[in-house]
Amino acid sequence: MTIQTVSLNRSHGGVQGVYKHASRETKTDMTFSVYVPAHKDGTKLPVVWYLSGLTCTHANVTEKGEYRAACAELGLIFVAPDTSPRGENVPGDPANAYDFGIGAGFYVDATQEPFAHNYRMWSYVTEELPKLVTGHFPVDAARQSILGHSMGGHGALTAALRLPDRFRAASAFAPIVAPSHVPWGIKALGGYLGDNKRTWCRHDAVALIECGARYSGFLVDYGDADSFLTEQLRPELLKNACEQANIPLTLRRQGGYDHSYYFISTFMGDHLRWHAARLKA
Amino acid sequence: MTIQTVSLNRSHGGVQGVYKHASRETKTDMTFSVYVPAHKDGTKLPVVWYLSGLTCTHANVTEKGEYRAACAELGLIFVAPDTSPRGENVPGDPANAYDFGIGAGFYVDATQEPFAHNYRMWSYVTEELPKLVTGHFPVDAARQSILGHSMGGHGALTAALRLPDRFRAASAFAPIVAPSHVPWGIKALGGYLGDNKRTWCRHDAVALIECGARYSGFLVDYGDADSFLTEQLRPELLKNACEQANIPLTLRRQGGYDHSYYFISTFMGDHLRWHAARLKA
Repeated sequence: MTIQTVSLNRSHGGVQGVYKHASRETKTDMTFSVYVPAHKDGTKLPVVWYLSGLTCTHANVTEKGEYRAACAELGLIFVAPDTSPRGENVPGDPANAYDFGIGAGFYVDATQEPFAHNYRMWSYVTEELPKLVTGHFPVDAARQSILGHSMGGHGALTAALRLPDRFRAASAFAPIVAPSHVPWGIKALGGYLGDNKRTWCRHDAVALIECGARYSGFLVDYGDADSFLTEQLRPELLKNACEQANIPLTLRRQGGYDHSYYFISTFMGDHLRWHAARLKA
Repeated sequence: MTIQTVSLNRSHGGVQGVYKHASRETKTDMTFSVYVPAHKDGTKLPVVWYLSGLTCTHANVTEKGEYRAACAELGLIFVAPDTSPRGENVPGDPANAYDFGIGAGFYVDATQEPFAHNYRMWSYVTEELPKLVTGHFPVDAARQSILGHSMGGHGALTAALRLPDRFRAASAFAPIVAPSHVPWGIKALGGYLGDNKRTWCRHDAVALIECGARYSGFLVDYGDADSFLTEQLRPELLKNACEQANIPLTLRRQGGYDHSYYFISTFMGDHLRWHAARLKA
């Protein structure tokens, strides 16, 4: 497994890199970013995985996420994958839809044609990319955590619930918590996984909890001025499921905030401190 | 004078706005951003002006500058103008040059045709926009400071030297300090002001100091991996001029940093604390 360096920029005492590699899972080149803070030679650092939302690439959070100051202070590596395969031969032209296809992989392994060949984002972000990153960066694989935004919040919550021994902490900004019950999710899970809803539940945080998945606790922030709140995000469904299952949930309603990186960047430091406390416990 | 709101986003407890207005100086619509931190009703806050570099609009620093956390903490309003007039009827197509014309106003009032009609960025950023901002935002006009990057560092240094009573603090990231002596500056000042170099010196920080302008002190950061350092920026010329003139200069060489916002965002907090100390003194 080789990676190609796209760019390296010193920032906040560390190095912000952007890298590219030929993915076995997606059969495309995939781009991702990794921030490595200053550290002593030979030490390995905890790693935080950040999954992005609809329409995003690695670049949105890398440019606008304001995570580097906190990662530098806390000694955290921060990895941001892309949200889907991309390329001329990849189906799902984003000109047709912003919420399905390119830029909208939903962190599932598609079973439906013509998507099954390339859209393997679950295996990509939970298997292929972790191996690549662990092999190329000073990562302590025993100390990993995950967070995400919107569609990426959905990805982070489902990854934590399915791989609770891997991720010591999990949090989300404005996540889609119950994709089986909201328009974005119904379209995406139906399109990638087909009409049999039994195949959807392992990609639905609320359904996973209802089926018995457990986790040590989540931090979730959402803005009450988020235009997707009541139709697509529905944080109350996560609240109810966590209460029923006795999963500790710190759910914060942030007054006046919307769905943008202006919201995410405001609370990024809080989230990274939450992660660091659990990664270093 | 009226302004039109392009967008408002809550961020770091305050409001990041983007606004548009019909400029009397440039005879075009001009877009700018203003961040107003949380504050008590009726109070007026110090204002920091940020002038951007070549090719930038207000958006670059607004998205990538990481200034809001520090402005929220310190109680500073942060204003980011555009770098030139823009529009179909404005000469200086950026497809022809990134360093002259649209995106490259160099903070001068052009005297040469066809630029003199629109390219009045000196009057725009030092007269028209300050009046507009003071009229629409809770600004304490007695407490202003200025900073900038590259071409905008040039703008900030020359504005401070020419208007020392207005700006209580001034700093720069990787500024062009002596445009009369470097390719970017020779091209721009010649193109906007003509061949008579006597008209250039009030737009050249080093020349202004050599001609007797004085200031209370500057903070300047540059990266030693900045690819423009030795040909275009030449911080040693500012160092020499300040030493001769007994102007206090805190000039910091930052190891491994380049010319990008990854560099700027790293030291933005330092600069804003430097400004706040002087704005609140």
